[in-house]
Amino acid sequence: MPEQITLYTSKASPFAHRVELALAEVGATYQSHEIPLRAKPTWYARRINPANEVPAITYGGPLVSPIRPSPDSMKITESLIINEFIADLYPDSSFTPKDAVSRATARMFIDAAEWKVIPQFRDFIWCGGSTDALMNSLEYLQTILPENAKFALCDDFTIADAAIAPFVAQLVMSLDLGCYMDGEAKQVLEMLQGPECSKVWKYWQAVKEQPSFQATFNENRQQKCFK
Amino acid sequence: MPEQITLYTSKASPFAHRVELALAEVGATYQSHEIPLRAKPTWYARRINPANEVPAITYGGPLVSPIRPSPDSMKITESLIINEFIADLYPDSSFTPKDAVSRATARMFIDAAEWKVIPQFRDFIWCGGSTDALMNSLEYLQTILPENAKFALCDDFTIADAAIAPFVAQLVMSLDLGCYMDGEAKQVLEMLQGPECSKVWKYWQAVKEQPSFQATFNENRQQKCFK
Repeated sequence: MPEQITLYTSKASPFAHRVELALAEVGATYQSHEIPLRAKPTWYARRINPANEVPAITYGGPLVSPIRPSPDSMKITESLIINEFIADLYPDSSFTPKDAVSRATARMFIDAAEWKVIPQFRDFIWCGGSTDALMNSLEYLQTILPENAKFALCDDFTIADAAIAPFVAQLVMSLDLGCYMDGEAKQVLEMLQGPECSKVWKYWQAVKEQPSFQATFNENRQQKCFK
Repeated sequence: MPEQITLYTSKASPFAHRVELALAEVGATYQSHEIPLRAKPTWYARRINPANEVPAITYGGPLVSPIRPSPDSMKITESLIINEFIADLYPDSSFTPKDAVSRATARMFIDAAEWKVIPQFRDFIWCGGSTDALMNSLEYLQTILPENAKFALCDDFTIADAAIAPFVAQLVMSLDLGCYMDGEAKQVLEMLQGPECSKVWKYWQAVKEQPSFQATFNENRQQKCFK
């Protein structure tokens, strides 16, 4: 039986969303504490994450108020490391790939997404990155998604999906909100819905239907993301 | 019983050295094929690693000549992903941290080394990076090594050690070879052997004595590294 988990999260952070998805998928019991990204309390870096970033979790020790974490709890940071930890805690969950080969496949997918997809998405959404670079990353994502499976690895939503789904969601949402110069959003949306991105679009439809996604990507998160 | 493993390695690459250490620690049976870094055969990117980098392994399928890999084998790339895979294949080895908390601790150590230590080492060794930046990274490494354990995590040589040991070795060796401007190597060596780096120096002594290190960091590797 896993010990207490306290999650430090922010509805505005897709990295924190990764961990919320993982916790929902394994059905963990945990307490959650919202850290406002633009006004982080000073105790957070001191007591939880010296890098002053969300997400982070405490694991073990007594169940205490999130703002007074116990020195007896383990502090775990970095969304991908936290999600590996959650997968390790719940080895029988469908979230955790079952054998060494599947876990290696998941990690190679995550590594590819981390370097060749997510930075390009974020650059486009937040830093005025070029539509061409975004389109290249979408084409690349199309090549690494499987042909005959619902999700990134298989028909289960695994650690690989938790790593990328928040960023696909953020991209699509930003296109819907029309945050871009005339025509840019339309051009990307057309590509997303066309044959070049058929697997990406199908993937996004499957993600939207997943209960863990619906439970975590609620109106609150959508509003906070683009404030 | 694990299936066939073929390692594509280079004696000149500390990233490949990581995987050689892992395979030695778990006592795996494998065949090894040297890829010359400056003259990679054209089949390598096509048949093994599209990114054209070492290390890589094939796992499973029939045992065949390394230059004619079977389509039935799984191709695994990226040194840290390969080492997680090896740890997963040998869960009872002392190389594999035993529980979820130890695995998370190992991954946080590796992540810290990957971003805050190894780039600074490599920058100093290969790109004329500043002595100050190197010294800062050594001071940081001193803070993340444990006080009362032989290796990065505990008294066993684990996945955390395989990630960083090749780079510590490369740094010390480059200092010994006197590749630097007058005084630079001396200044760093003095720091390494002084109180500011006491844990780092003790760590390096323990690494040098480890049988897996002695088996893989042989004269052949030392010579190739600085050619």
